[in-house]
Amino acid sequence: MVKLVLMRHGESQWNLENRFTGWTDVDLTDKGREEARKAGELLKQEGYDFDLAYTSVLRRAIRTLWIALDAMDHMYLPIEHSWRLNERHYGALQGLNKAETAARYGEEQVLVWRRAYAIAPNPLAADDERHPRFDPRYAALPASELPATECLQDTVARVVPYWNETIAPSLRAGKRVLIAAHGNSLRALIKHLDGISDDDIVGLNIPTAQPLVYELDDDLKPIRHYYLGNADEIAAAMAAVAAQGKAKAK
Amino acid sequence: MVKLVLMRHGESQWNLENRFTGWTDVDLTDKGREEARKAGELLKQEGYDFDLAYTSVLRRAIRTLWIALDAMDHMYLPIEHSWRLNERHYGALQGLNKAETAARYGEEQVLVWRRAYAIAPNPLAADDERHPRFDPRYAALPASELPATECLQDTVARVVPYWNETIAPSLRAGKRVLIAAHGNSLRALIKHLDGISDDDIVGLNIPTAQPLVYELDDDLKPIRHYYLGNADEIAAAMAAVAAQGKAKAK
Repeated sequence: MVKLVLMRHGESQWNLENRFTGWTDVDLTDKGREEARKAGELLKQEGYDFDLAYTSVLRRAIRTLWIALDAMDHMYLPIEHSWRLNERHYGALQGLNKAETAARYGEEQVLVWRRAYAIAPNPLAADDERHPRFDPRYAALPASELPATECLQDTVARVVPYWNETIAPSLRAGKRVLIAAHGNSLRALIKHLDGISDDDIVGLNIPTAQPLVYELDDDLKPIRHYYLGNADEIAAAMAAVAAQGKAKAK
Repeated sequence: MVKLVLMRHGESQWNLENRFTGWTDVDLTDKGREEARKAGELLKQEGYDFDLAYTSVLRRAIRTLWIALDAMDHMYLPIEHSWRLNERHYGALQGLNKAETAARYGEEQVLVWRRAYAIAPNPLAADDERHPRFDPRYAALPASELPATECLQDTVARVVPYWNETIAPSLRAGKRVLIAAHGNSLRALIKHLDGISDDDIVGLNIPTAQPLVYELDDDLKPIRHYYLGNADEIAAAMAAVAAQGKAKAK
């Protein structure tokens, strides 16, 4: 039996400000750092140990991983970064306050952009300075691979090859793997693992920095999954994620 | 022309307490973290960019690297860890206060243990809980490779193969490389690069967290080397390192 641990990054500055983040490289808040530390302590306390970690090239996921590894006394763990584990690219919505956007376009439209499986927001213009082609961390990628916006389907289409070609072979080789990533790249992975439908994946909310354990069989098919932490805290964290994108009362 | 940057970790808790550290996994002091941050800012300001970093499996070197990469906005840099870049193993001296040891054994004996090329301190006993065979990070290594003490010659003997088999091929492939390591693993590497004699390597003091740039030719032979920082600060840092291990006045 193979155990895989997934972890969404802790609260980021733009989670706190309720803004669409996507590939914007914002940092964790103090609360997010504390969440990451607790996650690491929980993993250590529960006896988890790893041979390898995968994460994105975005600092909120990397810092979550670093802080958790520090708390686990395991700073020397090999880490592999890939843009394929990045958050879904939010196109022209990146930087907009979710509540303001909801007030302007209506909650329904925001929910479509956030949750419809195959509908992407407007792309960033090719000359927009936020376009990933201007970012040195993506310099080695062909222009055709670089998104200027994504729907969840697009995110799935770049996460699954990374699972198949990189992560799954490590698991088959007996490596104990931790993945620190983002709400939508983890949703993409879970959709693939559990065979969740395009419609149902919309309703899956992943709380921040709560270790999510997947037990897989030898063919890497899920047997069961569970969060490690306190059940009440996890339920509250899921509800908080689900409430994002609603217009604030005032 | 190939540029390679070497960096010794910032001040550690046991540097501050003047104790023999070796493979003991002590952390940086606040000053050490600040040194690391400054080193990263300096590298960024001077326009340095990297494709790959190498470090040890000890937290003071890893944290120095993490903090510097954070300051460089380059947290996503691939990092390879190896025990071969660890500090020299100080055997049974690990944990002893250098000044106390000097007062007990005499400064000359301490200088021999610290600086004689081929004389190692007494080894840790095989059942000593500090022996690396009890540390999970070394579990994959054959017992014959695990030191219980080292002289600098022993450190050279495990650093040079890592240079030849891992770091040098990366440089030849055009990668821009940063190495964050320890006083003696860097001394071992510099001895190899510059062909320094067994006697002369004793006098080489490397200041903490000061980026040391080696310009190499296509055969990876050094053309010249220089520290990036302020010359006065570097001279003071070198003098501080040289003064370690002397008995305190009182």
